[in-house]
Order: sequence, then structure tokens, then C-alpha cells
Amino acid sequence: MDKPSGSTAKPSGSMDEPSGSTARPVDKIGVVDTMFSRYDMGAQAVDELASCPGYGQRFEVVRRTVPGFKDLAVAAKRMIEGDGCRIVVALGMPGRAAIDKQCAHEASTGIMMAQLMTSTPILEVFVHEDEEDDPADLAPVFRERSRKHARNAYWMLYQPEELVRRAGQGVRQGYEDAGPIDAAAVLPLG
Amino acid sequence: MDKPSGSTAKPSGSMDEPSGSTARPVDKIGVVDTMFSRYDMGAQAVDELASCPGYGQRFEVVRRTVPGFKDLAVAAKRMIEGDGCRIVVALGMPGRAAIDKQCAHEASTGIMMAQLMTSTPILEVFVHEDEEDDPADLAPVFRERSRKHARNAYWMLYQPEELVRRAGQGVRQGYEDAGPIDAAAVLPLG
Amino acid sequence: MDKPSGSTAKPSGSMDEPSGSTARPVDKIGVVDTMFSRYDMGAQAVDELASCPGYGQRFEVVRRTVPGFKDLAVAAKRMIEGDGCRIVVALGMPGRAAIDKQCAHEASTGIMMAQLMTSTPILEVFVHEDEEDDPADLAPVFRERSRKHARNAYWMLYQPEELVRRAGQGVRQGYEDAGPIDAAAVLPLG
Amino acid sequence: MDKPSGSTAKPSGSMDEPSGSTARPVDKIGVVDTMFSRYDMGAQAVDELASCPGYGQRFEVVRRTVPGFKDLAVAAKRMIEGDGCRIVVALGMPGRAAIDKQCAHEASTGIMMAQLMTSTPILEVFVHEDEEDDPADLAPVFRERSRKHARNAYWMLYQPEELVRRAGQGVRQGYEDAGPIDAAAVLPLG
Amino acid sequence: MDKPSGSTAKPSGSMDEPSGSTARPVDKIGVVDTMFSRYDMGAQAVDELASCPGYGQRFEVVRRTVPGFKDLAVAAKRMIEGDGCRIVVALGMPGRAAIDKQCAHEASTGIMMAQLMTSTPILEVFVHEDEEDDPADLAPVFRERSRKHARNAYWMLYQPEELVRRAGQGVRQGYEDAGPIDAAAVLPLG
Repeated sequence: MDKPSGSTAKPSGSMDEPSGSTARPVDKIGVVDTMFSRYDMGAQAVDELASCPGYGQRFEVVRRTVPGFKDLAVAAKRMIEGDGCRIVVALGMPGRAAIDKQCAHEASTGIMMAQLMTSTPILEVFVHEDEEDDPADLAPVFRERSRKHARNAYWMLYQPEELVRRAGQGVRQGYEDAGPIDAAAVLPLG
Repeated sequence: MDKPSGSTAKPSGSMDEPSGSTARPVDKIGVVDTMFSRYDMGAQAVDELASCPGYGQRFEVVRRTVPGFKDLAVAAKRMIEGDGCRIVVALGMPGRAAIDKQCAHEASTGIMMAQLMTSTPILEVFVHEDEEDDPADLAPVFRERSRKHARNAYWMLYQPEELVRRAGQGVRQGYEDAGPIDAAAVLPLG
Repeated sequence: MDKPSGSTAKPSGSMDEPSGSTARPVDKIGVVDTMFSRYDMGAQAVDELASCPGYGQRFEVVRRTVPGFKDLAVAAKRMIEGDGCRIVVALGMPGRAAIDKQCAHEASTGIMMAQLMTSTPILEVFVHEDEEDDPADLAPVFRERSRKHARNAYWMLYQPEELVRRAGQGVRQGYEDAGPIDAAAVLPLG
Repeated sequence: MDKPSGSTAKPSGSMDEPSGSTARPVDKIGVVDTMFSRYDMGAQAVDELASCPGYGQRFEVVRRTVPGFKDLAVAAKRMIEGDGCRIVVALGMPGRAAIDKQCAHEASTGIMMAQLMTSTPILEVFVHEDEEDDPADLAPVFRERSRKHARNAYWMLYQPEELVRRAGQGVRQGYEDAGPIDAAAVLPLG
Repeated sequence: MDKPSGSTAKPSGSMDEPSGSTARPVDKIGVVDTMFSRYDMGAQAVDELASCPGYGQRFEVVRRTVPGFKDLAVAAKRMIEGDGCRIVVALGMPGRAAIDKQCAHEASTGIMMAQLMTSTPILEVFVHEDEEDDPADLAPVFRERSRKHARNAYWMLYQPEELVRRAGQGVRQGYEDAGPIDAAAVLPLG
């Protein structure tokens, strides 16, 4: 807690900085997950980022774990302000109970505000425990959604054109893409 | 990310600046949409703006795409702060599931806060996937709503009197206007 | 957009300034309404204010129209910051659909935050389309509620004692007053 | 409106200042209520505070009335910023209709934010019109709840130890205390 | 109220400061609970912290009590700003009534915002009165949940690695852990 700071406004546009200078500092991408979740989502996100070009040179990954998903927002904000993360992937699993739905809403609202207060994207990756009847069936959802959003974070920083070319394509994470309503508009996405 | 800034307060009034000076900088209007949507809403908004007077001279358009509608708010805020957009059109498609309704609320709350934190309008253009039973029937709604709100953004910047003359006229976007409850008050809108 | 400003904190107390000085600037009261509404609420509010003592001398009215009620909050905030309005009346009509209820909540939350960020009152005047089965029956509600809240705004600025003497009197706008639960406490309100 | 100020952060701890100095300024406690309520809650709160030790010497009371409970938040914030109130009691009556529940939520959210923006407590005292079937039965609830929360405000400023000794005691305002779940833990509260 | 301050941003990372210096100031951990709760949750949290290594040397505990859970947020914020608490445990008991659910949501939203405004974690520890049919059965839930979250606060400050090794382990407080969905991933947690 030795680097106090206010809100570190990071402006928009292509999030990539002009390269070519001498000694560019290594970017940081944050990954924060929970003890409450029943799957190690953070490990998947970290592993996906480790497979992206520039890992270890252009960017590195900072990881934290908090008790539950309502603790994600302030943790992500601290990773932006204190660790200098340029984007954060925040992963959690809302439970099956009615109160869990309410808490998920509060957690999401907090993540939304943390983004706006820092002008920095925080990708919320939630897998709801009731998306499948059998918890065991959730394993691939946890894995795919965590990885795809980690990849989205990478694209937002370094390849925003990958996002624009998928505009309106009904892209999903964790399940099959819904696709565009106009079949003729389906892109061959690689 | 090379133009860090705080909150760029843009005051009210007729949003148009006093003209007539020498070299007025070109205004920027932002358009941000999602990969999640099943229709390329951003393309429609950009196309409508390209048909407005002054396109390319008085104003130009900045476009971004984000993964889902909960990522729109911080993206729009960054376009205002970093790109200098004077108004942003934010387009998305909430899905059919119950959780999608909850997420749409969180996305909208974020867009509301982004506007207040920057004192800059962000027009939220959402087409709900369940507005029609058959997704194919949504195509004209996507197209019309995206275009009409793009036009509203243009009016807010350059022709606010077009809005005042439609006050209380039951104007809709994507479907037919509801009209005023007093039939005698129907305006001949051109 | 030529008078940029931050948050213009206007403190509490009797909102009236000490008079008697030489050239007091004319106050501004804001009125903002929507194209979506099916009744010209703004015109009623403006008309009521025009009938209040001091209109045109002590205060004048600034009017804007925005597309829908979710656009009211930032518009009101801009009228406070940019136009110097000391109070704003924000008028809108939430529709009958379920999604309209949700949007009304978001609009209200935004108006609440705009007030707190500027420390300036914004009177929210909403007429819900389903308050009556027959839309035609809403006309007097639209008219009375718009006018009574415009009058409330005037009182808040210049005659706060009119409010204090109605404390706990079950006062309503648009329909008959509910009155105090203790019949003996009914005030003869003029 | 002649004492503009920003956010007057008042820090925590025992809210009482170190005494013993020469000419300590008189504290201010705010009371704000509504015309909408069907009982004069503000008068009860003011009366209770007038019965507390130090009234008129150590502290005095500032009272305002606003149209409805959604106007309480900004009014309380202005009383803190402009009048220098160290704590505010905000009283209102949410009505029976479904829309009133929604509005009560918005009013409460605003009061919460006003507290956080000023770092100053605002005690929300709401009596819901449907707590009793017969409105006449609400009179003692209005009276007791308004008075007990006025007393809580006094304790928070000057006798915080009264609150700590009631921790976990199931204390209620307006109805009988629920008491602790462990009967042996019931305190003899004077 | 003699230490006014703004927002004391405390950045993220391992929350522990580099040690080894000469006279490190004693950290403060805040505990705030309510009179409304039917169990003395604050006493349990304080007792658990008193059993942690470094109690009285490395850190000490500040305790407050407020009327109800909607008063927790501003109290916690004041403990961070005024008392210098580096983390706060906020404990409360939402009641059984429908309005209590609504209030719990507002209380939680406030606690979320207080965290983001101070960039400091506040662990929300809520026991819902309806988690058990018989209130007496809640006693162990109150005790365990209060203690486990007090321990989490300690870990967040001094042993963040204890949290990371429990990532995705389905850890619960007050009831038995849910465990990871992949049985092979169960950690032997000491």
C-alpha cells in the first residue's frame, strides 16, 4: 500500500500506445477472482493471457483473489490505481439462491462504477451456478468464458480491430455464438 | 491511450458553438456498439450520420466496438474524454434471458452515470431481443432505431429546435409514433 | 457549449439570496421535457412559471427538449452548469410496457444523481401512462402535475415557508390531496 | 444561497469534538420532511431534539420541508454543505402504490449517496403507508419513529456509547424491540 | 470530528507495507455493527481479530455501532477517512419483511460505493434473518460468519496468499464450504 493515488484516468481510442520509442514500460493486465467460486476461473484467464503474443515482454499479468464477488470491484479499482493495470478481468460465480441474484447485481453495479471512476475497462466474467442443472456441466462454461474474456481484454488493448469486425455478429462466451439475425451477415471468423 | 484526461465537462444550452470564427476544430460524434448484438447497429448509425449536413467538414464520426453492452459505458466515457466526442450514440441488444434484463439495467445505469460524470449526452439505443417473437422481424427495428437516434444526436448538437418542436408529440424510434393524446395537438412533422 | 464548468455547488438554506443590492443578476429556472411524452408538459410548466411574481424581472425560464426521459438527467445537469439554472423542472411520461418501468427507474436514478452532483434541486415530474386506462383521461393529470411542480420550484426558490406550512399535509399533484391522517390537522391551504 | 461550498467532509470517530475551548460554535442538527407525508413528522423530530440536553446552547435545529421524499436527498446535502449541519434527520412517508415502492427505493438511494458524498450521517426515517391497514393506526408509528431517530441522531453526535451498548439488541423504532435471539443477552436498557 | 479529510485512496497490491523500517505506525482495522441486529456480531469480529497475530502491536481495532444497516456505509467511510482504518468489517442483519430486502439492497449499494470512493475494502457481513426458520438456529451462523470475515480482513491486509490458494474452492462463511465442482480440485485447507 505504498503507492497512493487518485483516479488514474486512462483515455479511450485504440488503447494501444504509439510504439517505437526506446524503453516502453511493460503493461499490466489484472486478473481477480474469488474463493466463493467453485472453479478456478482466475487460473484459466491467466493461462489464456500467457498464450497471447507479447506475454512477459509487452505485458504481464497481476493476479489477486478476494473472498466473494462483491469484493471484486474495489479490488479491481486498487489494481488499476495501485498496480497500474490498464485493463482488468474480474471473474466470479453467482450462486443459485435468490439472495445471490441480488448480490450479483450489487457486484455488477460496483464493477460498473469502478470502471467509470477510473475510465478503465474491467471485463466482468460471471458464470451463474444455475446456468446448468448439474454443476459438473459448468466446467466447460467456466473454462471457455474465462478464456474468451481474457482474450477480449487482450484485443481491447492491442487489437481493437478484432472487435470491430465482430460488431453485430451475436458473439457469445461459454456457449455457441448466437450469430447475426441476417444469415447473410455471418462473418467467417477465424 | 496517449491523451489522459479527467472529466471533460461540456456545458448545456444549445450545444452548438458560436460559429463564424476562423479555423473551428472538427467536432467528433462517437458511435459504439457490441459483438453480442445480432445486428450491426453501429454501421447503421454511422451511415445515418454520414448523410447529415456537415459530415466530414463540421463533424466526423469515431467508431468502437466492445464485447457486450455492459462494456458500453466506460467505452463511451473514454470516447468523450480521450477522443473528445461531444456526444456518443451507444447501441446494444439485451437478450431474451432473465439475466439479460438484469444486465441491461446495469448497462443503462452505467451509461447514465457516464453522462453525468462527463456532462455529455450519450444516447442509449437498445433493441431488446424479445421485442419480436421472430428475430428476423427485428431487422427493421434495429435499422430504424439506430438511424433515428443517430439523427437525434445530430439534432442535439446542431438543431436543438427540432427537438423542442416535437415536445410531447409521442415520438418513437423503431416503431410508429404514439402521437399526442390530444389528437388536435398532432404536429405535421416533416 | 461555450461556458464549460465543473459542478456548481449551490448550498441550502432559504434558497433566496439577500436582496437589496444594486444590480442583481436575473435567476434562471430550467424546464426540460421530452419528445416521447404524449402531452406537452414543458409548455404547461413554462406557462405556470410565467404567471408567478417576478417572471421576467427576478427570474427567467430556460427550456430544452430531449428525446426521452432517460436523457433528462444530463440535460438538467447541463442547464445547471452551463446555463446557471438555480432549479430545474424535469418532465416526462413513462410508458405502459414493463421495460418502460425499468427505464423510468433508471431515469429517476439519474435525476437523483444529477441533483447530488450539483447540489441543486431538480423536481422530477413524471406522469405514468398507465395511471389511467383511457389516455384521454390523463390530460388533466399532465396539466395539473406539471403546473403544481412548477409552482413548487418557484416556492423553493422564493417562498420556502409555503412548503414548511404544508409539512405532513398529504399534498398531491395531479390528483386530489390525500390529507393528513389526523383530520384535526387539516390546514386551510389557500 | 450565499454560502457556496463543495463537499464538507466530516470525519468519523466519536462525533463529538474535544470540548473545553473558549467559544465553541453551536452545532446544527438538520430536520427535513415532506408535504406528501400524511403526518407532521418533522415537528415530532424537532420536538424530541428540543428535549435533549444542550438544546439551544450546544446545538440548534435547522428545519426544511420539500414536496416529496425524492426531494429529501439534495435538501439534506444542502443543509450539510450550506447550513453546516453535522447530522440530518430525513423523514418521509412512502405511499401504498407499487410506484411508491419504486420511488422510495430511489429516495433511499439518494439519501445514501448524499451521506457518502458529504461523509455525514443522514438518518432516513420512513413510515410506509401500508405498515397498517387503517391509516389512523399509523399515528403512533409516525410519532415514535420520528422521535427515536431524532434521539439516535443526538446520541451519534454526543453519546456514541449509547449505541455501542445496544449492539445486537434487536432495537426497533415505531414498534416494540425484537430483542436479541439469545434471551440471556437482553440488556436492561433504560 | 477533529480530523477532516477527503477521500483517503489506499492503493491495491499486497496490502501489506514493506516492513523493516524504524517506527511503523500501528494499523487500524474497523468493526462496525448495528443496534437492529439480534446478535452482537461486532463482539465476535472483535474477538476473532484479537486472536490474530500482531493484535495490539501491528494492528488495533476500532469499533462503532450504528442504528441500522443502512447507516453502516457512511460510518465505515468515516472510519476509513477519520480514523485511518485500512479495512473495515461491516456487520448487519436484514430482517424477514419484504421492505427489509429492499433496504438490504440499499445498504449493500452504499457499502459498495463507500469502498470505491475510498479505494479501501469494506467486508459486508450480512446474516439474513430468514436464513433459518427458527431464529435460535441463527446463532452459530452469526458467530461463524462474523469471525470468518474478520479473519478474511486480516488475511487481506497481511496474508493475501491465503486467499489466492483458495481461489475457486467454493469457500463459504457461516455454513459448510460448497467446494469446487471438480472433486479432484479440492484443496486440503488447514
